[in-house]
Amino acid sequence: MRAIILSVGDELVLGQIVDTNSAFVSTKLASIGVDVVRHVTVGDDQRGIEDAIRAAMPDCKAIIITGGIGPTADDLTRQALAGVLGVELDQDDRWLAHIEAFFKRLGRVMPPGNRIQAMIPRGSKLLWNHNGTAAGIHSMFNGVDIFSVPGVPKEMRPMIENDVLPVLSKQTGTSVILSEILHTFGVGESAVAEKLGALMDRNRNPTVGTTASAGIVSLRINARFDSMSLARKSIAATIELCRSALGDVIYGSQDDTLVTVVAQMLKDHRKTVSTAESCTGGLLAKYLTDVSGSSAYISHGWVTYSNAAKSSELGVDAKLIEHHGAVSEVVAGAMAEGAMKNSGSDIGIGISGIAGPDGGTETKPVGTVCIALASKTSSTHTRTFQFPGDREMIRDRAAKMGLSMIRFHLIGRQMGF
Amino acid sequence: MRAIILSVGDELVLGQIVDTNSAFVSTKLASIGVDVVRHVTVGDDQRGIEDAIRAAMPDCKAIIITGGIGPTADDLTRQALAGVLGVELDQDDRWLAHIEAFFKRLGRVMPPGNRIQAMIPRGSKLLWNHNGTAAGIHSMFNGVDIFSVPGVPKEMRPMIENDVLPVLSKQTGTSVILSEILHTFGVGESAVAEKLGALMDRNRNPTVGTTASAGIVSLRINARFDSMSLARKSIAATIELCRSALGDVIYGSQDDTLVTVVAQMLKDHRKTVSTAESCTGGLLAKYLTDVSGSSAYISHGWVTYSNAAKSSELGVDAKLIEHHGAVSEVVAGAMAEGAMKNSGSDIGIGISGIAGPDGGTETKPVGTVCIALASKTSSTHTRTFQFPGDREMIRDRAAKMGLSMIRFHLIGRQMGF
Repeated sequence: MRAIILSVGDELVLGQIVDTNSAFVSTKLASIGVDVVRHVTVGDDQRGIEDAIRAAMPDCKAIIITGGIGPTADDLTRQALAGVLGVELDQDDRWLAHIEAFFKRLGRVMPPGNRIQAMIPRGSKLLWNHNGTAAGIHSMFNGVDIFSVPGVPKEMRPMIENDVLPVLSKQTGTSVILSEILHTFGVGESAVAEKLGALMDRNRNPTVGTTASAGIVSLRINARFDSMSLARKSIAATIELCRSALGDVIYGSQDDTLVTVVAQMLKDHRKTVSTAESCTGGLLAKYLTDVSGSSAYISHGWVTYSNAAKSSELGVDAKLIEHHGAVSEVVAGAMAEGAMKNSGSDIGIGISGIAGPDGGTETKPVGTVCIALASKTSSTHTRTFQFPGDREMIRDRAAKMGLSMIRFHLIGRQMGF
Repeated sequence: MRAIILSVGDELVLGQIVDTNSAFVSTKLASIGVDVVRHVTVGDDQRGIEDAIRAAMPDCKAIIITGGIGPTADDLTRQALAGVLGVELDQDDRWLAHIEAFFKRLGRVMPPGNRIQAMIPRGSKLLWNHNGTAAGIHSMFNGVDIFSVPGVPKEMRPMIENDVLPVLSKQTGTSVILSEILHTFGVGESAVAEKLGALMDRNRNPTVGTTASAGIVSLRINARFDSMSLARKSIAATIELCRSALGDVIYGSQDDTLVTVVAQMLKDHRKTVSTAESCTGGLLAKYLTDVSGSSAYISHGWVTYSNAAKSSELGVDAKLIEHHGAVSEVVAGAMAEGAMKNSGSDIGIGISGIAGPDGGTETKPVGTVCIALASKTSSTHTRTFQFPGDREMIRDRAAKMGLSMIRFHLIGRQMGF
């Protein structure tokens, strides 16, 4: 089954905003076996929208239109749709009452302009919008399903999932698609792929693919089967195989982030952490406090950017710095221990490195970062990393590696495969 | 003059990546007076690309194609182009030698697949790529200019600016376009617009428009004139009017960020700063160390997330916290003073607030943030802000406001208009 996605909006053709809706709709349609053959974007012009719908008709069995169903004079998708269908716009009394009630709850009278949002082409079906005043429209014309949905992503997305996909998946005969995402940190994409081996075979079902973003290598597992029970069983088996292949390198699934996973583990283990940062300049502490309720596990952090600060605030012996340099395992270790001791926390993390672009040497090039973990229960553990990329990337990877070291400490394992 | 932008790539129609190229090309074409009437995206399919080019031909005088000119078997834009033009592909010996030399410099032999990148449709013009192996192609067909450029943004962007715009601006009769961007922080977009008044009139030349992103409201000034000297004079006069209207709220231009501007000011004034952060959890220190060489002005930072940490590390009197609450101007002031004193810096910034989503009260709702600036040269200055948005946004705005307060302190003025 072929589909075409049509985006409507002057702000899109003028390039003032990037169209992210088409990519979202594409991935959703692909997941139920629909072939998206084209994305088309046109401005807020009735004739242009009509032409685009007519041009799409012969090439597909479904058209998804996003945008142009707002309350203002430049929202013209419904009028264009009626034009193509050759019908009048009828008022949907139920939706009108719903919008009026919506404004009443806000203590306002509905502006007259919003009345248009209750008008839909005669013979079309209204799609309820649970997140705004722009109802969707489902029309049928010459055997093509035409869906008009809002351009606002948070209104569009649920409508695609709840109203569009069920209709189209009946026609593609794809009974069940299940997807799962697993996340890894600390190993490269090619190393992950090598460990997965034949699991990444394109002809396999479920399929396993990898994507890398900001140091996180994620596995996307897609299962397509005739029955839900078979899909569930198969995807669970594949997840198990991926977990066997990659072990503790997998830190989470779906919406998990390193921060949310480590935060939850610290809470579960009732452990507290403190930070002593040089090159990351506070980024690890920022990550650790990204989630609400982080005061349960962090109370103190230090940014000791100068050598003097490392000594005065964390008690790092100035001689250690003189002998080994600020970027050294012993200094990172002393920083971690100082943070733990001063704060009374269970774990201390020390980070010292060269984020660049300046400051690199032959023996300690830009990207060299020493990270130490001190704890009350074991001896201080320090590692030296060589991170690639620019200053921003090096600092990000170093702070994430700090999170990862906390995670491996709490599960009581060595980092890596 | 009308133009159509065509994006080519399976990853785009499948929704695996979002097409940002079309928006970029649109804004560039708009800046020289070209009307973009449509964006179209198709997959890596020769027939599909040919159909899309043929469908666009009658509706415009220029087609910009991004993507599909790489070295692999699924890159089919050049073949589709030759198909539409009805000509053969010829080898460009100069470009072939250039690619071969490129690989040689990397110590590698050119893979045979890359040879296709030196093939262009007979009669078309090759556009030199200074950033990769995919040369662009400029074709003319039935009075329509067709430009094929790489899909990789950093290769595509300079080619649009250096090869496409000069050709098309000759046809639109726009001789000279000059653009300038000014950045403001700390006031809303509507307040900026109100101050600018008639400067934002759409019929004005140069035009002045505003965009808001991550708390930064930017002014885009575009001048279109017949001569460079007139354009230069006019844009300078408009910039002067904008500066008169907005004053010190404008912190920079073009690629300036709050961080780079404040960092340079601290260096120029030979002043040092230290941070004492509660709700921002290290983000202000992270911002201050975003640029290389930041050790010139920052040596110490504290993340004092708990009340005990505020007292033990920064000497904040526990009674103050008890009486006024941790989120109060006096506590933020004491944090700033403690940081300044402990570090010996010229300036101390203290931040205490409620980033949410939990922790808000009736008198101190989520988004309430107190920020204090202590300095050796003046009494401690504290302000309470009510930032909108979610946890991430509140923390970002609070840290940026900390930067902004440093800036206003250094120029010796009050914040705001």
